[in-house]
Amino acid sequence: MGKDKKLVQEITDMNEDFAKWYTDVVKKAELIEYSSVRGCMIIQPYGYAIWELIQSQLDQRFKETGHKNVYMPLFIPESLLQKEKDHVEGFAPEVAWVTHGGNEKLTERLCVRPTSETLFCEYYSNAIQSYRDLPKLYNQWCSVVRWEKTTRPFLRTLEFLWQEGHTAHATAEEAQEETIKMLNVYADFCENVLAIPVIKGRKTEKEKFAGAEATYTIESLMHDGKALQSGTSHNFGDGFAKAFDIKYTDKNNELKYVHQTSWGVTTRLIGAVIMVHGDNSGLVLPPRIAPTQLVIIPIAQHKEGVLEKANEIKERLSSIVRVELDDSDRMPGWKFSEHEMKGVPYRLEIGPKDIENNQVILVRRDTREKIKVSMDELETKVPELMDILQKDLLEKAREMRDNKTYFAKDMEEFKKIITNTPGFIKAMWCGNEACEDKIKEETGATARCVPFEQEELSNTCVCCGESANKMVYWGRAY
Amino acid sequence: MGKDKKLVQEITDMNEDFAKWYTDVVKKAELIEYSSVRGCMIIQPYGYAIWELIQSQLDQRFKETGHKNVYMPLFIPESLLQKEKDHVEGFAPEVAWVTHGGNEKLTERLCVRPTSETLFCEYYSNAIQSYRDLPKLYNQWCSVVRWEKTTRPFLRTLEFLWQEGHTAHATAEEAQEETIKMLNVYADFCENVLAIPVIKGRKTEKEKFAGAEATYTIESLMHDGKALQSGTSHNFGDGFAKAFDIKYTDKNNELKYVHQTSWGVTTRLIGAVIMVHGDNSGLVLPPRIAPTQLVIIPIAQHKEGVLEKANEIKERLSSIVRVELDDSDRMPGWKFSEHEMKGVPYRLEIGPKDIENNQVILVRRDTREKIKVSMDELETKVPELMDILQKDLLEKAREMRDNKTYFAKDMEEFKKIITNTPGFIKAMWCGNEACEDKIKEETGATARCVPFEQEELSNTCVCCGESANKMVYWGRAY
Repeated sequence: MGKDKKLVQEITDMNEDFAKWYTDVVKKAELIEYSSVRGCMIIQPYGYAIWELIQSQLDQRFKETGHKNVYMPLFIPESLLQKEKDHVEGFAPEVAWVTHGGNEKLTERLCVRPTSETLFCEYYSNAIQSYRDLPKLYNQWCSVVRWEKTTRPFLRTLEFLWQEGHTAHATAEEAQEETIKMLNVYADFCENVLAIPVIKGRKTEKEKFAGAEATYTIESLMHDGKALQSGTSHNFGDGFAKAFDIKYTDKNNELKYVHQTSWGVTTRLIGAVIMVHGDNSGLVLPPRIAPTQLVIIPIAQHKEGVLEKANEIKERLSSIVRVELDDSDRMPGWKFSEHEMKGVPYRLEIGPKDIENNQVILVRRDTREKIKVSMDELETKVPELMDILQKDLLEKAREMRDNKTYFAKDMEEFKKIITNTPGFIKAMWCGNEACEDKIKEETGATARCVPFEQEELSNTCVCCGESANKMVYWGRAY
Repeated sequence: MGKDKKLVQEITDMNEDFAKWYTDVVKKAELIEYSSVRGCMIIQPYGYAIWELIQSQLDQRFKETGHKNVYMPLFIPESLLQKEKDHVEGFAPEVAWVTHGGNEKLTERLCVRPTSETLFCEYYSNAIQSYRDLPKLYNQWCSVVRWEKTTRPFLRTLEFLWQEGHTAHATAEEAQEETIKMLNVYADFCENVLAIPVIKGRKTEKEKFAGAEATYTIESLMHDGKALQSGTSHNFGDGFAKAFDIKYTDKNNELKYVHQTSWGVTTRLIGAVIMVHGDNSGLVLPPRIAPTQLVIIPIAQHKEGVLEKANEIKERLSSIVRVELDDSDRMPGWKFSEHEMKGVPYRLEIGPKDIENNQVILVRRDTREKIKVSMDELETKVPELMDILQKDLLEKAREMRDNKTYFAKDMEEFKKIITNTPGFIKAMWCGNEACEDKIKEETGATARCVPFEQEELSNTCVCCGESANKMVYWGRAY
């Protein structure tokens, strides 16, 4: 190993310093690199390959539900941003302003899009005339900029990659149906692709999107007990339509306002994957988003026949899984650590003994369980094992989340839990924003959502003790 | 037809006003829409679907040649942009400057990336240490901004979508090999996917990229006789490496500078497709980039069995080609025009008579040739017909280009050709920039490239009459 300049180094123990563990993993699994541009990240090949897998599987779901991709300009003129009052108030303080083009000062400032509602609205106000033009079901993949003060890779960055769906409908009912449909697409994607269980619910008035009538969210729980808003879907009602004058003629020749929605997920999903599945050896990737699902590591690769066999196996599996052969001149132990750090779901060990016994050893990344597989059964066993790992990761994450979900009946309990055993706190709420503010002030926890699945845990507000019939998930959040 | 508000309208004849024909097609085929952001376009679903097909087929070629995708920040600090002298001189006059973030004035201006050499160089200066780290073969798909004064959809816009490959190599030879390899990937893609024949060659010193040692280009010819630079590949030598201090330790433990390349194509390729294949009925799309390759148009669709049969055919073909069924309540003639405008390669007509005869009629978009196909042979005939059209479009484009390629031995001939029969002009050049300048000044034509395939057409410079041994393709260009 002497000649390997780069060694797999220890990473911080997640129980000692979770934040440091996180940045260690992000850097050492080669997901991102910092640049001289404050708060912006360089997404390296391995990190970007994960994003490509997220993107392609989400995009397929969007297309299956009838959505089409478009591309809107990067810039928004200041006057356009200001058309919807709540929206501009929410976003103006955190946008980047372009004031000069070449050597000329612009007559009107342009902001770099923080989100594209205003551009879609302007477009729709021209493109929609008749009920025949509805619904409009559009989406775009792009980068957006929000001028954040403190940033963390994937979780909060000045620039991030995302998709933003923007739809327009004839009726309020259709818009509501779309809002919930896309929330369900996100929830399904998180559970079945990212192996992350989510709570679906509605945001409180205080937490909703600037300009929305209602915001729905999927909330997931990280290893350290903090919540992560993982995707949102907004129903705009006809608020934007009125601000931008987006009207259509219905079948009875009457002029009506459209009803709109928007919904988005971002590269922060990669942060969620790291903090839900990762461990003290690094990243753990669910097979469906693993750029390499299986890495073949030859043992005693200098011995006759080993590399040939390893290559033969790679060949056989290459149309079935994303497979890589590590035949570099490093020691097997070094390779084990390296690919564990990168979260490769399975490694396949093959050495002279295995060849003699017509078998290989598969090692699961999460449990390190060793599984003997006959050389003759690779094509059927490997995909089976991928499915098992994918499912187990979801179950494990669900258990972790459930174990960190508590009930608090009053503020004393609430504070005890948030201090000693951080996680989701289910608690009843009277619906009064004063209580919401007070909880945030005293505990740092925010209302993550009013979940669709309500439980009647008590009938008094956790904060004021008055009558309450809303159960809320609370938590400190990223 | 009375109830159809939207009718297929006439477009300008391309022989009367080519520029107007172009914008008519771009708008009426619903490729783009204008927005209130000067010089930026909204790429509509149909236009974006074409870009997605271009993207996926290019991306596959990049990955097959060993390249990986990454994502670099949108912003470049002014000091970083200034590190390579020629590069900043070339780009600074045409960048957009961000001066404020939220309510704060920035201490250093950021430009919105016009291209990302400087960001890749900064990254490589950290990521490359040893010969083991080489080569770096990275690419990114993103949007870039150049503050153009006059803009035209796809051809020249303030913001455009593109890919930019950036590679670093141990030796000058490897960098040169990569530069040419990627030029060949582009040429192959243009010919076999876009059905556009290209001239491969090297740019003159005057026309090369700001900061490059050598720029190579593929040049195509539009219907109006103007040239379009369709893709470029640059060899940077070690110029950027020296400016950014990108060094590696070679096998003999010596410190050396890397050699770099970059290469890119943009959404302007869509402009090339329009102007090479389009006609007076609108867009003509090569099957390989057609979002819909075949549109089924039922004739007398109210008659029993017609729609059922149309749906059955759609079902049968849907795994073979990108197929659409237009069963809207518009008249067949309206549908014919609509899908011709959109350049759908084939339409399939099916009516009661066809069903009786167990056949369908396929109509080619480009020639309007009608082809009877037995209902039993659809699965084999349709892909065959797609291949034929794809090939014929390339041949037709090659003929058009060859017919518009001329030889000029002196300036008198040169001017006559450029005025009367615009196209590519092959002419000998002494290599002197003064002649290049003079030709541009007097004719508006620029040196498109010094082609790899040289012909000794004469031995005197077309401009000064001195001895010359370089044949150059000249032309007015977009």
